[in-house]
Amino acid sequence: MSAEPSLPAPSSAPRFGVWLIGARGSVATTAIAGCAAVVAGLHPPTGMVTETPPFTSCGLPALSSLVFGGHDTVDCPLPKRAEHLAAGGVLPHGLPSAVHAELVAADREIRPGGPVPDDTGRSQDAWAEVFAADIRDFVHRQGLAGAVVVNVASTEPAPAAGTLPPSSLYAAAALRAGCPYVNFTPSTGLHHPALTSLAESSGLPYAGRDGKTGQTLLRSVLGPMFLQRALAVRAWSGTNLLGGGDGAALADPAAAAAKNAGKERVLTDTLGHTPEGEVHIDDVPALGDWKTAWDHIAFDGFLGSRMVLQTIWQGCDSALAAPLVLDLARLVARAHEKGLSGPLGELGFYFKDPVGDGPSSLAEQYAELRRFAGRLRDDVDERGAQR
Amino acid sequence: MSAEPSLPAPSSAPRFGVWLIGARGSVATTAIAGCAAVVAGLHPPTGMVTETPPFTSCGLPALSSLVFGGHDTVDCPLPKRAEHLAAGGVLPHGLPSAVHAELVAADREIRPGGPVPDDTGRSQDAWAEVFAADIRDFVHRQGLAGAVVVNVASTEPAPAAGTLPPSSLYAAAALRAGCPYVNFTPSTGLHHPALTSLAESSGLPYAGRDGKTGQTLLRSVLGPMFLQRALAVRAWSGTNLLGGGDGAALADPAAAAAKNAGKERVLTDTLGHTPEGEVHIDDVPALGDWKTAWDHIAFDGFLGSRMVLQTIWQGCDSALAAPLVLDLARLVARAHEKGLSGPLGELGFYFKDPVGDGPSSLAEQYAELRRFAGRLRDDVDERGAQR
Amino acid sequence: MSAEPSLPAPSSAPRFGVWLIGARGSVATTAIAGCAAVVAGLHPPTGMVTETPPFTSCGLPALSSLVFGGHDTVDCPLPKRAEHLAAGGVLPHGLPSAVHAELVAADREIRPGGPVPDDTGRSQDAWAEVFAADIRDFVHRQGLAGAVVVNVASTEPAPAAGTLPPSSLYAAAALRAGCPYVNFTPSTGLHHPALTSLAESSGLPYAGRDGKTGQTLLRSVLGPMFLQRALAVRAWSGTNLLGGGDGAALADPAAAAAKNAGKERVLTDTLGHTPEGEVHIDDVPALGDWKTAWDHIAFDGFLGSRMVLQTIWQGCDSALAAPLVLDLARLVARAHEKGLSGPLGELGFYFKDPVGDGPSSLAEQYAELRRFAGRLRDDVDERGAQR
Amino acid sequence: MSAEPSLPAPSSAPRFGVWLIGARGSVATTAIAGCAAVVAGLHPPTGMVTETPPFTSCGLPALSSLVFGGHDTVDCPLPKRAEHLAAGGVLPHGLPSAVHAELVAADREIRPGGPVPDDTGRSQDAWAEVFAADIRDFVHRQGLAGAVVVNVASTEPAPAAGTLPPSSLYAAAALRAGCPYVNFTPSTGLHHPALTSLAESSGLPYAGRDGKTGQTLLRSVLGPMFLQRALAVRAWSGTNLLGGGDGAALADPAAAAAKNAGKERVLTDTLGHTPEGEVHIDDVPALGDWKTAWDHIAFDGFLGSRMVLQTIWQGCDSALAAPLVLDLARLVARAHEKGLSGPLGELGFYFKDPVGDGPSSLAEQYAELRRFAGRLRDDVDERGAQR
Repeated sequence: MSAEPSLPAPSSAPRFGVWLIGARGSVATTAIAGCAAVVAGLHPPTGMVTETPPFTSCGLPALSSLVFGGHDTVDCPLPKRAEHLAAGGVLPHGLPSAVHAELVAADREIRPGGPVPDDTGRSQDAWAEVFAADIRDFVHRQGLAGAVVVNVASTEPAPAAGTLPPSSLYAAAALRAGCPYVNFTPSTGLHHPALTSLAESSGLPYAGRDGKTGQTLLRSVLGPMFLQRALAVRAWSGTNLLGGGDGAALADPAAAAAKNAGKERVLTDTLGHTPEGEVHIDDVPALGDWKTAWDHIAFDGFLGSRMVLQTIWQGCDSALAAPLVLDLARLVARAHEKGLSGPLGELGFYFKDPVGDGPSSLAEQYAELRRFAGRLRDDVDERGAQR
Repeated sequence: MSAEPSLPAPSSAPRFGVWLIGARGSVATTAIAGCAAVVAGLHPPTGMVTETPPFTSCGLPALSSLVFGGHDTVDCPLPKRAEHLAAGGVLPHGLPSAVHAELVAADREIRPGGPVPDDTGRSQDAWAEVFAADIRDFVHRQGLAGAVVVNVASTEPAPAAGTLPPSSLYAAAALRAGCPYVNFTPSTGLHHPALTSLAESSGLPYAGRDGKTGQTLLRSVLGPMFLQRALAVRAWSGTNLLGGGDGAALADPAAAAAKNAGKERVLTDTLGHTPEGEVHIDDVPALGDWKTAWDHIAFDGFLGSRMVLQTIWQGCDSALAAPLVLDLARLVARAHEKGLSGPLGELGFYFKDPVGDGPSSLAEQYAELRRFAGRLRDDVDERGAQR
Repeated sequence: MSAEPSLPAPSSAPRFGVWLIGARGSVATTAIAGCAAVVAGLHPPTGMVTETPPFTSCGLPALSSLVFGGHDTVDCPLPKRAEHLAAGGVLPHGLPSAVHAELVAADREIRPGGPVPDDTGRSQDAWAEVFAADIRDFVHRQGLAGAVVVNVASTEPAPAAGTLPPSSLYAAAALRAGCPYVNFTPSTGLHHPALTSLAESSGLPYAGRDGKTGQTLLRSVLGPMFLQRALAVRAWSGTNLLGGGDGAALADPAAAAAKNAGKERVLTDTLGHTPEGEVHIDDVPALGDWKTAWDHIAFDGFLGSRMVLQTIWQGCDSALAAPLVLDLARLVARAHEKGLSGPLGELGFYFKDPVGDGPSSLAEQYAELRRFAGRLRDDVDERGAQR
Repeated sequence: MSAEPSLPAPSSAPRFGVWLIGARGSVATTAIAGCAAVVAGLHPPTGMVTETPPFTSCGLPALSSLVFGGHDTVDCPLPKRAEHLAAGGVLPHGLPSAVHAELVAADREIRPGGPVPDDTGRSQDAWAEVFAADIRDFVHRQGLAGAVVVNVASTEPAPAAGTLPPSSLYAAAALRAGCPYVNFTPSTGLHHPALTSLAESSGLPYAGRDGKTGQTLLRSVLGPMFLQRALAVRAWSGTNLLGGGDGAALADPAAAAAKNAGKERVLTDTLGHTPEGEVHIDDVPALGDWKTAWDHIAFDGFLGSRMVLQTIWQGCDSALAAPLVLDLARLVARAHEKGLSGPLGELGFYFKDPVGDGPSSLAEQYAELRRFAGRLRDDVDERGAQR
């Protein structure tokens, strides 16, 4: 790779920006390094739905056309962060050096985030304006055909009444800069009454909330199974162990509340009622970026017989999230290009707590995603009619 | 219940026969006792898909209209068998006495099965004819509007070349008696070249093979999840522990072969390739009718990260199967009434190894089952057109 | 049984009282019914260590010599409670009627407990005196050679400063009545500074705290394994699901605190350090008296390789506890008879948080228990010397 | 490391040989690389019991005094093998280069193994003599104070009657060369009638068979728990998934037979009876050197209540085995030095199927190992008496 970096898209081809909030975190670093690795042919695009048919023929921006930048409050440069991730087994050994040039290029486009707790001199509006200017500047300097803002920062605590939390300041900045917005976390983002009218008047598409990467993904296929088979779920209990930044953030009950609400919503929506049971998220630093989710489902069968299903999911959080982030950036950039606006409920496949009123079972969400892909084709107009 | 047995359907309403091969086995006993219990309002119809919308409005025979009979090679009367099942926790305590009258009535309609290994005096054709006569006699004496033959006998070993195994003799008998046939087991049944032309010329609907009640049910929802998320399944391994008659039958590698083929088919069909891994079925008498299935799925995520999902399913085999047997009897009886014939691929929702060319993901099978229900409505003709 | 109730011990043989705090709870009911069932030969004494060699030859009171009574704040009579437990699968069907006479007899010896929250008219000392009088009366009327008081009541919340919680009032009553005391729960009991001098001056033996019946039992054998194999445990996380009264009581964080302290103590003592990880206790009413404990142990092997052990324990809480309660009553009654006094650290085998300074690995605790049994023999004097 | 290789022991200190059968396999490579890494201070000696008290004070050879060599039938040099293991996550990244010098040194001492299936020109006795000569030459050239032969080769199929399998030829060679022998595999080794008298007359100590590294290790602590608690184990079932060379070797039923016999022996010995249940070993190449063992234990509690314990062990086979191989080499070398001879039953802690008549519970085996360590001290003579 260092000798032959991934070929840039030909100068005539449009390039698209992916502006990541939390751009030096594990998910962002994995997305940036992974995109470069796939472009260079070092790895297959495992986990990227947009690289499977029929998504490959609906006009999405090529992976090689993506340009990365973003905001972050930490300083550790991307190449160094990537080395840490490789040492922890999150990135393959050797990948950080193979895509060093791309990591350096993205790191150059990362601007300071905020506000940090002791920032007091600047108003909330001023922060949003600074962020919007950073994004506009990125799009302009890089000559991009457009950019999508994706929040992949650590989950923030629930905001105090009357304040916009940081995630909402970034969301406002995205809209002010004319960019679609995707919230991959359970943080507030655009889900704030103060942003409703801005979102509506912006004419921009947006999507969210909280990427579905493990326990909730499973629940969105197992819940429908119990419903379709008329089996009566009595209790659904779960424990998550994870040790990365997200483990620490979610050990804060205030931060966990939003996440757990999303998890519960999936059960209630797919089962038609809310079963007994709790969900725990434990910070276990020894696990690093690897997470384990245990679910215990007590259900009744015929004549009241008591049965149990248990699932244990062991995965790498960043490796699960990163390809979905790339998917979403491409899909939303293309939706913007096609003139779609407002909440993209058709992307419920990706989220625990989707915007809009889509179905909650993964199978139906996948069918909807495929229909959405159809609407993105060149030969279909923005109202969905075949040209 | 003993004072007031479930009300028979009013004399004007048609009654339908359910003729069970293996009529004194756990599944049959649970289906017969459970049907009576639901009719009497003692238990909700948990696990019966046909008691959920939209299946409740498509003209299926009422549960109270079902009349049970069948063949079996064992003598233990149904009421006694039910007591054994209650002692083992398969049936609720008190149920055998509450539905004693119905068990006695069904037991009276059970005829000797065969051929047993040392039967030599009668030709295969003669056996099929005896069985067919038993079924015709049942329909005639009971004045039934029709009857469905359902195989719920223990899995038989693969047959010697040139012979029809017992399950095929029963299947032939069903067709000769003018009855639709459902194979809930992995045994041969109608899947025999010698029966192909009979099946075609009979004009009867049939369905099968091998009820999907646990591990394979899970696989049919988890397989599509991996495919839709573009995650690369590398190995899918499984072990089943069960102790009832099925445990002993399937500990015979010859009998297990057909069952495992069905399990593998689900993976191959839903994943698009056959992953590494084996499936074991262990006879563990201490578990009785309770089965435990452990699955271990090794898959690759983004950039080759190694992840694992494990599932543990603990259920009561008969309680899982019995409501599906009742579902199938009703659906197929109705299909027959509506003039449908040939392989009912739309019932793939229920089977490991379905007849026909239907989808293999449970969600799509469920959608197809709902469409099938639409075709069964009174206001729809046999070609599927709205009247 | 109803025809031939278990033979009472011959009139010349001494009889021993077992006075249960929480005498109408699941554990007490199971212990009383189970003792009668074993005496009557209806069930083997599975789970009773005192019915295995060498404990059968150390002079313990015969099961048939035990007489039950106790305190409780609820009214539901034991025979009815036993029916509920049988309906929930905790007791075998048919057992409540088989041992009805013994349940009625024990129920007659249950006295009202307290103080309940709105009791204000009586001082703490007066309560203890009432309880002590109840116990003395039981011993006297029944002509018992002695009695052991065992706390099997639901875990109580941590007491307010300066007050004696109910469990301590009962413990004080036991000592005032001249009876040894066993605390099978994590409640305070004798572990209160106000009772220290009474315990010392009483000359009575006592034991506790918090019976080791599932997750902690496992931890006390797995912890030593890791230590002996020099494997580095980094995180030990656990979740308990249970739905009986204990589930509800322990869902209160204040009540859970003492229990979790006991669980952690086992890890710290057997591993030599306290690993990362939390323990959750969830109230899942759908599970009834059945509990599931999942443990996830992340450990390092040679050269820092990351490994994981997971355990899933599914058991019936009362069935696990009851035989240990009978064991303890017999062992402590005999210890009293032999003139032993003070904390019986040799019974650490039974407890999460044992009194005294014994070993924490189950194997060593078992060895110590066997040595203790040796001291109880008739041919050994109270100082442990062979006569 | 490459700049400063681990310091050789001072020339005056004795050095000890570790002659590995299967010297280029995963276990051997991990042992050799790991020994060098620990000596160099790159890793703590996790998993090595001999580096914990009281084993550190009983005169064992220092790790830095160990010199490696061995036989193997494959050619891949150790440094390359170590690179493969690092790529598969078995060795830490960077370790192969850090200990390159030591790997090269050991590789230089590896001699061709045999006989391979098509070797016909040499008699069995001639093979044993060639091997013995290789070992003698190693000891002589390196000026070693002694050497221990350890079999860590892939499990061999059960031998044809009348032939000595390869593992027995190596075992005979060890004794002829005057070296103690350790069989870390389930292969025959010294367990052959043709070698009995040689073993007895040799005056050499030996140990084995089949290292206890996962499922059986767990069984040796869980079995005693059930016994001590008087819980009735009814069925103990298990499945092992592993993908390294051992996975392929043990997928051969003939090779698996010996291993499974060892696993069963532990259950029978610790429980006092053989419960129902089977053990499967599946070859799953996708798992590489990582193995997963699932155990399902059905047991009865008080009054026949049915309970279940399940365990899932996920570990790296080589990382589990290698530190035990180093332990055994040191312990047996020291035992030889102290003049001990014959079967070392006191090393049962390490084996599934130990020589001699020792206890089968891990706790008792550990106690015995500590006593054995006491006998190895300088101030204790060969008959175990304090000097």
